[in-house]
Amino acid sequence: MGNRFLFIVAAVLAAACSQAPEKMQLTDVQVLGSPDGNMVMTFGLSSDGTPAYSLSLCGKDVVLPSSMGFTFRGNRVNDSYETRKGHIYKDPVDFHSGFSFEGAENGGLDETWEPIWGEESRIRNNYNELLVKLGKDGVKLNIRFRLYDDGLGFRYEFPDQENLTYFVVTDELTQFAMAGDHTACWIPGDYDTQEYSYTVSRLSRIAAGHNPDYNASQQICSENAVQTALQMKTDDGLYINIHEAAVLDYPTMNLDLDPGKLVFKTMLTPDAEGFGARMQTPCKTPWRTVMAVDDARKVLASRLILNLNEPCAIPDAAEWVHPIKYMGVWWEMIADKSKWSYTGDFHSVRLGETDYGQATPHGHHGANNDNVRRYLDFAGDNGFDALLVEGWNEGWEDWFGCQKFDVFDFVTPYPDFDIAALNAYAHSKGMKLVMHHETSSSAINYERHMEEAYTLMDKYGYDAVKSGYVGDILPGGEHHYSQFMINHYHYAVTEAAKHHIMVNAHEAVRPTGLCRTWPNMIGNESARGTEFKTGVLPNHVTILPFTRLQGGPMDYTPGIFEMDMARLNPAYPGKISSTIARQLALYVTMYSPLQMAADLPEHYAEHMDAFQFIKDVAVDWSRSEYLLAEPGDYLVIARQAKAGAKCKANMGMDGHEWFVGGVTDENARDLTVDLSFLESGRTYTATIYEDAADACGLGDDPAFNPGYHIRSVKVTSADKLPMHLAQSGGFAISIK
Amino acid sequence: MGNRFLFIVAAVLAAACSQAPEKMQLTDVQVLGSPDGNMVMTFGLSSDGTPAYSLSLCGKDVVLPSSMGFTFRGNRVNDSYETRKGHIYKDPVDFHSGFSFEGAENGGLDETWEPIWGEESRIRNNYNELLVKLGKDGVKLNIRFRLYDDGLGFRYEFPDQENLTYFVVTDELTQFAMAGDHTACWIPGDYDTQEYSYTVSRLSRIAAGHNPDYNASQQICSENAVQTALQMKTDDGLYINIHEAAVLDYPTMNLDLDPGKLVFKTMLTPDAEGFGARMQTPCKTPWRTVMAVDDARKVLASRLILNLNEPCAIPDAAEWVHPIKYMGVWWEMIADKSKWSYTGDFHSVRLGETDYGQATPHGHHGANNDNVRRYLDFAGDNGFDALLVEGWNEGWEDWFGCQKFDVFDFVTPYPDFDIAALNAYAHSKGMKLVMHHETSSSAINYERHMEEAYTLMDKYGYDAVKSGYVGDILPGGEHHYSQFMINHYHYAVTEAAKHHIMVNAHEAVRPTGLCRTWPNMIGNESARGTEFKTGVLPNHVTILPFTRLQGGPMDYTPGIFEMDMARLNPAYPGKISSTIARQLALYVTMYSPLQMAADLPEHYAEHMDAFQFIKDVAVDWSRSEYLLAEPGDYLVIARQAKAGAKCKANMGMDGHEWFVGGVTDENARDLTVDLSFLESGRTYTATIYEDAADACGLGDDPAFNPGYHIRSVKVTSADKLPMHLAQSGGFAISIK
Repeated sequence: MGNRFLFIVAAVLAAACSQAPEKMQLTDVQVLGSPDGNMVMTFGLSSDGTPAYSLSLCGKDVVLPSSMGFTFRGNRVNDSYETRKGHIYKDPVDFHSGFSFEGAENGGLDETWEPIWGEESRIRNNYNELLVKLGKDGVKLNIRFRLYDDGLGFRYEFPDQENLTYFVVTDELTQFAMAGDHTACWIPGDYDTQEYSYTVSRLSRIAAGHNPDYNASQQICSENAVQTALQMKTDDGLYINIHEAAVLDYPTMNLDLDPGKLVFKTMLTPDAEGFGARMQTPCKTPWRTVMAVDDARKVLASRLILNLNEPCAIPDAAEWVHPIKYMGVWWEMIADKSKWSYTGDFHSVRLGETDYGQATPHGHHGANNDNVRRYLDFAGDNGFDALLVEGWNEGWEDWFGCQKFDVFDFVTPYPDFDIAALNAYAHSKGMKLVMHHETSSSAINYERHMEEAYTLMDKYGYDAVKSGYVGDILPGGEHHYSQFMINHYHYAVTEAAKHHIMVNAHEAVRPTGLCRTWPNMIGNESARGTEFKTGVLPNHVTILPFTRLQGGPMDYTPGIFEMDMARLNPAYPGKISSTIARQLALYVTMYSPLQMAADLPEHYAEHMDAFQFIKDVAVDWSRSEYLLAEPGDYLVIARQAKAGAKCKANMGMDGHEWFVGGVTDENARDLTVDLSFLESGRTYTATIYEDAADACGLGDDPAFNPGYHIRSVKVTSADKLPMHLAQSGGFAISIK
Repeated sequence: MGNRFLFIVAAVLAAACSQAPEKMQLTDVQVLGSPDGNMVMTFGLSSDGTPAYSLSLCGKDVVLPSSMGFTFRGNRVNDSYETRKGHIYKDPVDFHSGFSFEGAENGGLDETWEPIWGEESRIRNNYNELLVKLGKDGVKLNIRFRLYDDGLGFRYEFPDQENLTYFVVTDELTQFAMAGDHTACWIPGDYDTQEYSYTVSRLSRIAAGHNPDYNASQQICSENAVQTALQMKTDDGLYINIHEAAVLDYPTMNLDLDPGKLVFKTMLTPDAEGFGARMQTPCKTPWRTVMAVDDARKVLASRLILNLNEPCAIPDAAEWVHPIKYMGVWWEMIADKSKWSYTGDFHSVRLGETDYGQATPHGHHGANNDNVRRYLDFAGDNGFDALLVEGWNEGWEDWFGCQKFDVFDFVTPYPDFDIAALNAYAHSKGMKLVMHHETSSSAINYERHMEEAYTLMDKYGYDAVKSGYVGDILPGGEHHYSQFMINHYHYAVTEAAKHHIMVNAHEAVRPTGLCRTWPNMIGNESARGTEFKTGVLPNHVTILPFTRLQGGPMDYTPGIFEMDMARLNPAYPGKISSTIARQLALYVTMYSPLQMAADLPEHYAEHMDAFQFIKDVAVDWSRSEYLLAEPGDYLVIARQAKAGAKCKANMGMDGHEWFVGGVTDENARDLTVDLSFLESGRTYTATIYEDAADACGLGDDPAFNPGYHIRSVKVTSADKLPMHLAQSGGFAISIK
């Protein structure tokens, strides 16, 4: 491997587009090239022994020399106790300068692996690797770099060693020095939420605190900090994306910008004591990643984050993990047409003491037997796999925002929700119910009830749960993205796996590719989704695939057909900024193995022709083609259905089915869809769902009109389809 | 009830020893008298509407007018969210002044109840009650006072109300204004430990920070704060004891002294955010108690704390909760003669990854099969109920003081501990093993494993667990006595009850009488015990029954026969400050339904004549007589065995067996034991275990000699036995 690497480095240095990296005052310089030779990472130690790295693509600076390291501290334990072990640093310790170089190892990998579900059925994982070994005061620190053709991943590793067992990371000092004032799609750095609209601006105009978006739990961490994944574009056409991979037992980071120098520094989400991470050697940090490509479509095609995660840890996952197309008793509560709660009798609820049997129903409870059966009838008739039912369990009269510990028990249905009968009814229609566990962010309460809750699911035949973490975290002082909660979310997923349960966690931490290892993590929210209704900006879904979706699928909950919220609830004025065709496009552009048809049956019944696309569209894919893309502007993606995937939509498919989706921002556009991805010489029938000629998807525009037009044409791989997209519009094409 | 109370008040005011309460500038004054009329509590509102109370006994001031109330605050949630409910105060709110009087209710109770186990078989619960109803800005606050013949209990109650649902207590402002510079037995106010030696001093000399005692987790909270129970003596002979009862879902308090005014204020143990308690109406605080009696023996006889707790909440407790006399594979590890750990191979352990099967045993593991069988043989032959085995499970190589999350799994035995065979062997001898769950204070890790751990106990036939909370609490920022941990300990006890498991928690919060409600809480440590070896002062056991034991039994682990620690480990010099006769006395003076014979079998084998007392002594009692007592000086207690108690020691007894114990401080004493508690006209055989004539229990005295002398005499109720106690000595008498 070593020899092979030397050859590669030589090849890199000889490659036409390579240039010498930025001149740096570094010693012990190590150079790592990507498999294709276009990307070069340079590592070295500065004059004071601070580790630093830089990155270039075809000679263009991606990351200027950027320092690395930590500040450590011990816990508050009196460390004079005679039996204390290892090094617990009581006072802050510099663990970023003063290092000496103690060696390096080279390696690499070129493998192809098959995900349980995904955007494609085979993923190539091809990188060159450099492991740098450093030492300081007898303490060892390794830094592992993996360089792909489309980006860099690196992480800190603390090997098993006599002089360091336990320590606390108080600050991680990893820098990402940008080479220019790039244009970025950013959301504010926050310890508790990602549910923000994106701002597209120069780096120097980042002003996180000025974002007016409100969330039930939020703590903006710095005026100039933004969250990962951060998608940037340079003036000379590079697309740079900074992210994280495999965040386990460590908080997520924000990127805190020095606006004068254009240097980002990691800013870890603190725990209740203000610490970043409690560590025990041997251990490692998550990967820090810098993707750099010369075409926006390559960002979407990148598998960098997945590849940096460990292989599947569930041996029998393929037997029970499966994609899901589902409906839900949900949107009607989001729109305040019905309620999660059952009664108006209680302003304070204590589970186990409050007697719901004696309560007067307020008559607006969504999860009642009749309504659930109504949804099951519609979803069953239209080929769905499952139905989510929220508000099925006692406690919703008094659950929100008070850091209430015993908020739900996750096992006690409301009097009008017959859990046995409704599951049996779903099964009779070849469907399952999807469980709902809103934790109200009372994490320990959830853990106390988790085994019983999962066992209840087993009993009645649920195999997937949507969990929720609305509001501030309890125990108090912890954050949604602090190490404690990172470990909690992971615990929920691994415990679920023991029960063969799939997890779709909302308001949890943004995913960082862990679904490769734990494919029962079937979905996540962790971004502003459809539930924000009129609060979703037109450019939002043109950005998410570059940012939030890099880490894993999002339960975006598309498929809204009735954009006029007042039709659901007169007290709720305003229209969603979308056309119906755009809603269909999202089933393709917003990849997820878990796709919802979020609207009400009665709204679909009004547009059964358009609804046909939602019925038809596959949920699992063998191949994806990223046809057109510019973050913040537009996206066109084509995907080939995977034959034999274990969901109803895919079951009858043989792999010759393609689905195409396109979305635009607030601007109308004419785009051309090149069908050359189709099998040559074969004729297909394309059903095109497009914006009506007079459509307009801007919710606050007097011309708003979500109308659509459907047509069918015969197509071959030689065809190029011209498509018109309305403002905040889109299109969807089903090709068979 | 109301009429009855009015009569009592009238009687109080007419009683010979009653005087008008201290003149106070209070309005809306309410007066409450004790059933015997000797104690008077006066409540009123000060001119600015601050609630205040005072207490007197036979006209002597016990508590001078002392104000009451709180400071509230909301959590950090943005409270502008439209659906927020109730009052969440974001900024500190004065909830101590500005109240108006809205009424009062009187009541009372005179009942007798039977504990599952205890110092006596029937307990009288007799009090007069006053419920004061206050209001401020539309928010209701009730204060409930219960006045007994020996003391006052009061608590704050927040009824169900429209204007207050959720709130956070940031400070409780309850005062206890002392009428003089009393002499107190105090330990420093601390959020994490009670394992201190007592200082006996005037209140004005309290200097908590100067106590040099070290503990693995400690946080002294104020220079002038002390812990409850605080035992004081006034210059005119009153014994005043301030404590708490029924601490649930609320932190414990420290008593912070204003040394100039001699006024104590409650100082709640804060959570990680610095808050005291998160509350949801309807709710209540724990009881705050002030005992006041004119004889130290009445403090020991008081059942104030138990009576203020709720009745037994376990319907079938009598069927499975039972007293236990036990030995343990424990003292040899405490003395560092053997180890909890199994191997020296690992300086860092990760459960599930570290392979103990391949490890080299270091050969000093205490909990090995042969050694456990050796203890079982001895304990079985000598009539013990059970054997504790610590260090049986993987993880002890790397468990202490690093706030390690996954520290133990509580289910994986070391390779040399055959859990099935050893339990079977114990059962063959009519014994049980006692499980050990050291949590290393990683509370959430324990909760995650709790159900599996208790289930393992069920499987192998354990019915009691000793749990431990050594080191700083994880999640970080919480304390041993913060609301979070109070709830954790209670969760461990209530979950254990579902498995019919008894709990003996060490390093947990001091008990506050909850064993009345949850009698499976069979023991607690929560004070400096025998494990401190040479670090236990001679006066310690003369104080604990007045303080720590007021809240419930302590697993003090008496019965050390080998005082010379160097005989266990040459590296461990020093001698325990005790005689052997004193060790025997502790089985009577330190009441507990769980009594250990803590020393090694080989040490008992050297003194089988003295060991006979440990074999004989009962563990459950029908009656206790407090013959002589002065806190800090001496104690003599006689107890009558309860016939038919479910432990081997009591099983053959008919209730005519009495056991007497006496201990002294660093001074030798001659005390007279009046046997008039014996049944008149009956002749008994008394076996007397007393200090040898040349005995001296002071470990650092050159004359140290723990020697004893045993004699038998015939006695009747007319006898008075003169007893000589050596310095730090004692005596024990078995009467049949």
